[in-house]
Amino acid sequence: MLVEKEQLLIKSLQECMIVCNHCLNECLTEEQVAPMLDCIHMNRESIQFCSYLEQAIIRKSPYAKEFAEICLSVCEDCANECKKHDHRHCQYCAEICKECVEACKTFLEA
Amino acid sequence: MLVEKEQLLIKSLQECMIVCNHCLNECLTEEQVAPMLDCIHMNRESIQFCSYLEQAIIRKSPYAKEFAEICLSVCEDCANECKKHDHRHCQYCAEICKECVEACKTFLEA
Amino acid sequence: MLVEKEQLLIKSLQECMIVCNHCLNECLTEEQVAPMLDCIHMNRESIQFCSYLEQAIIRKSPYAKEFAEICLSVCEDCANECKKHDHRHCQYCAEICKECVEACKTFLEA
Amino acid sequence: MLVEKEQLLIKSLQECMIVCNHCLNECLTEEQVAPMLDCIHMNRESIQFCSYLEQAIIRKSPYAKEFAEICLSVCEDCANECKKHDHRHCQYCAEICKECVEACKTFLEA
Repeated sequence: MLVEKEQLLIKSLQECMIVCNHCLNECLTEEQVAPMLDCIHMNRESIQFCSYLEQAIIRKSPYAKEFAEICLSVCEDCANECKKHDHRHCQYCAEICKECVEACKTFLEA
Repeated sequence: MLVEKEQLLIKSLQECMIVCNHCLNECLTEEQVAPMLDCIHMNRESIQFCSYLEQAIIRKSPYAKEFAEICLSVCEDCANECKKHDHRHCQYCAEICKECVEACKTFLEA
Repeated sequence: MLVEKEQLLIKSLQECMIVCNHCLNECLTEEQVAPMLDCIHMNRESIQFCSYLEQAIIRKSPYAKEFAEICLSVCEDCANECKKHDHRHCQYCAEICKECVEACKTFLEA
Repeated sequence: MLVEKEQLLIKSLQECMIVCNHCLNECLTEEQVAPMLDCIHMNRESIQFCSYLEQAIIRKSPYAKEFAEICLSVCEDCANECKKHDHRHCQYCAEICKECVEACKTFLEA
């Protein structure tokens, strides 16, 4: 009922939400939280936008592509913020966010 | 904690969700459902996008404005679809969707 | 970052949302929509509750189990409604909703 | 299209989401974040559950009351956690969460 590129994007969105939530929770317990504030806020944004896009794809929304472009830039911003921090959870989160950006692009090109 | 233009937009989004849900349910019970299909689907889209935008505003998301532009066009499309139908619930829904479009514009201009 | 039983439940919730949305859309295009109204409404409920539970699990919410009990009964009601209708999409939807009920139970027992 | 008690509950849920989000953001910028962790997590839960309940009421979901009981206990737990902290935003958040608990009760009794 969903074509393959949609299935792949949903899988990627889901992984991104799980990893961003993990990063958010780990950031909260770092010794210095102040430098992690932007990262915490970006993780929260990513989780929400990935969830909205997942719903739009499942609903077969005619606005899914338009919306995927915003989600793509949110995940890209999140990846760029995470990359700034040496914490292992941030570096891993940057990687998964980048994969999600690529999955959005594949979905948009199709 | 929210400025006035945000409060007004949230009020408008909420009214739009309530009225679109009412229109959707009434469309389902019309004698002829086939001509109402686009209206039903558009109502469903409006409800979801208004809800996402409400959440983005409450969260003070830095992407709220970008997202408001999509929500604005969804509500505009919904108003245009509803306007085609003579049913009282459709005409009323078109009116409320238009008000929501205006509220999005005010929010974007501020 | 998620344990296996959570991964399985998320997979099941997702499939349930996709199949319920398909069933909802197919019900809308049946020649007689009136007898499908309860099925349409139940599909809409299932989609929403599965989505909320997915979010709660991803967030590692302390209320996920409590919430899974409501989701379980929504999916069960949806399965029972779908089972009443001979349409292939309804019979298939009943099956997938039942699988989701089982996935909720496994999650609750763990 | 919504009865008065539903309108009041929606207004209360909305205020609760706004104030919990404010409390969450303020907690993140306190000098000592570690003692605020439970408060941050509870605020996040409250925001999500209030949002789900708002959607369920707008949708006229047959599960709204069942779900209001969970939301009520989430907001009560959030109020109790906030009350422990002397910060003005926590004390205010506790107050608004309590009001939301009362609005849920009124909705359930009706």
